[in-house]
Amino acid sequence: MLPDDADLISVDDHIAEPPTRWSSRLPQSKLEHGPRVVEIDNGLQQWCFEGVVAGTLGLSAVAGTDFKDRGLEPRRFEDMRPGCYDPVARLADMDLDGVTAELNFANWAGFAGSRFFRAKDRELALMCVQAYNDFVIEEWCAAAPDRYIPMMITPFWDADLALNEIERNAARGFKAISFPDNPALMGLPSLYTDHWDRIFGFAEEAGLPLCMHFGGAGNTPAVSDDAPHAVTTVLMGTTSFSAMTELLLSPVFHKFPRLRVCLSEGQIGWIPFALQRIDQVWEHYRFYNFERRIDPDARPSDLFRNHIYGCFIDDQLGIEMRNLIGVENILWEGDYPHADSLFPRARQSLEKALAGVPETEARRIAGLNARDLFSFH
Amino acid sequence: MLPDDADLISVDDHIAEPPTRWSSRLPQSKLEHGPRVVEIDNGLQQWCFEGVVAGTLGLSAVAGTDFKDRGLEPRRFEDMRPGCYDPVARLADMDLDGVTAELNFANWAGFAGSRFFRAKDRELALMCVQAYNDFVIEEWCAAAPDRYIPMMITPFWDADLALNEIERNAARGFKAISFPDNPALMGLPSLYTDHWDRIFGFAEEAGLPLCMHFGGAGNTPAVSDDAPHAVTTVLMGTTSFSAMTELLLSPVFHKFPRLRVCLSEGQIGWIPFALQRIDQVWEHYRFYNFERRIDPDARPSDLFRNHIYGCFIDDQLGIEMRNLIGVENILWEGDYPHADSLFPRARQSLEKALAGVPETEARRIAGLNARDLFSFH
Repeated sequence: MLPDDADLISVDDHIAEPPTRWSSRLPQSKLEHGPRVVEIDNGLQQWCFEGVVAGTLGLSAVAGTDFKDRGLEPRRFEDMRPGCYDPVARLADMDLDGVTAELNFANWAGFAGSRFFRAKDRELALMCVQAYNDFVIEEWCAAAPDRYIPMMITPFWDADLALNEIERNAARGFKAISFPDNPALMGLPSLYTDHWDRIFGFAEEAGLPLCMHFGGAGNTPAVSDDAPHAVTTVLMGTTSFSAMTELLLSPVFHKFPRLRVCLSEGQIGWIPFALQRIDQVWEHYRFYNFERRIDPDARPSDLFRNHIYGCFIDDQLGIEMRNLIGVENILWEGDYPHADSLFPRARQSLEKALAGVPETEARRIAGLNARDLFSFH
Repeated sequence: MLPDDADLISVDDHIAEPPTRWSSRLPQSKLEHGPRVVEIDNGLQQWCFEGVVAGTLGLSAVAGTDFKDRGLEPRRFEDMRPGCYDPVARLADMDLDGVTAELNFANWAGFAGSRFFRAKDRELALMCVQAYNDFVIEEWCAAAPDRYIPMMITPFWDADLALNEIERNAARGFKAISFPDNPALMGLPSLYTDHWDRIFGFAEEAGLPLCMHFGGAGNTPAVSDDAPHAVTTVLMGTTSFSAMTELLLSPVFHKFPRLRVCLSEGQIGWIPFALQRIDQVWEHYRFYNFERRIDPDARPSDLFRNHIYGCFIDDQLGIEMRNLIGVENILWEGDYPHADSLFPRARQSLEKALAGVPETEARRIAGLNARDLFSFH
């Protein structure tokens, strides 16, 4: 059971970027093409970037509304709870739900900042990444440094620029890196190359976990064009299974034995099956003469215990199978203000899920694992 | 525990098509472009179709070889065990492994016959499908009608032709239909249309289950181009999760309340998580005003129990969670002669997996469920 005084630390929430996030920080010459909020028909607000209307405000920033009233998107900022975009209002919502601290991803910018990856103006793209990170540390987290864990995005499309930006942010207290869950699916070098070595090496050295949110590389599961949205929502977690499989069969954890990765929003109830299956295939394929690159000695499920953290919102089955996953490898998340969020009953739901779990394990899952992983004490 | 006298019925094996499968049954005018085996460099044999060298002999027909000696493919028919392509030799291998009966998929032709879907000569394509089915019933299954369950492929790209072929085969004793696991991913109408109604309606009426083998629609999970083959092997089962999600959130089972579907080779240990997740998303999305098409009353996990069968080769976790899946919804498979097959220790492995399972449940999983589902008594 989860005691009333236990910390609840959410490792995946989102900031619906406020309208002036970029405009207040970009130079005058970049304002026209930088991200700004425009009104299109009937008062609908959208983001505009490089002259193109390019995306909804909040990616389903619907916290606190009734299921029965939900469309996919709020039409205007004033249709959202202020907690979606305002760090002080967010604190009030955290208090309401008994949440101690949060790690926030971007929203419109892409969970790992992928919105800027395809920008035509690469100088502008870098400025947008830096402005986002400046906002996170100087405005969002500054509102309550003991309750917000700072996480950066990176210009991951350029390894030199990304390393510079990571170093700049590590020096000013960032605790985590939001990183695409599979860069190869974006046309970038894969995990089987040495392209990412300096970044991963620095992250390992500085103790900065890589948070790989599903959808961070822009990939979604293949489904029928006319499938209900629910189908994609159900299946998004399979992209975390995919990211985990590639990581565990790649050289990454052999090269960086202290690197840590979070599978944000992936849920956890599938992990025991995934570990069984990866081990099973590895047991055979490590001998095959066409698979020379797989490490024949390190069992993937052992690598998992040392490197990967599963993150769940609402997953009773995963809690019941926690010993097959590893109690230390499980993190809780709120996903405020997205449609999967249980706000304002997130803590209540977690208490119910942890009702049969010993107190020390419940404390670890609810918050202590996150405190240790992100060195957030 | 599985008693020694318990039937072992495998619901997923493969026939590495013998060299004369089509040539002995096509008219003279179609022989040149029909499927035939050719020798390319260094004695390597491959299939040739419509003048194009188009695929390996056996899709990893490696039964009985040592893991350490395995490449991806046998180079010639004589490199395979005769049981891969000869129905009498197969019986000897089944005896060796304690297997009572088998349901076989095609191999080079595509699990659901998809090889012929993209043929330029549509008349030839239909003839190839018919010749395959004639071979299955007249040659393969005729070798031992009490040990081979006849399953057809269809010209699924044309609903009228497919219905004719299914009717022709139902009348001569076929027990199952191999069907693409997601036709929309092949550019065909989706499960949300009425395009498949006559086929599904006939299958329901005739008691013919649809066997949806992963990869049957030609889809594979998105992975890095340079990922080891093991990554795709691990993740293929996620396409069964995808097929199951689309089925359960589509109108199919509402329109055809006695239709049955097998998720061939999907394994089963992920199913409890999948059911939890589909129910969870359905609980919310059924109310959303943009999701009017989801049935708001029928819980997806209830539909699962009445309609879907999970199929496993080697899945200890799935066996342990059998009550969350439904003991009646679980079928065993051997996957002979593919790389995942445990031949000649398949029965031994299953006995070990079922060691702690009550005898009546073990008998159901090993064979009785399959006998009932395929009306094979």
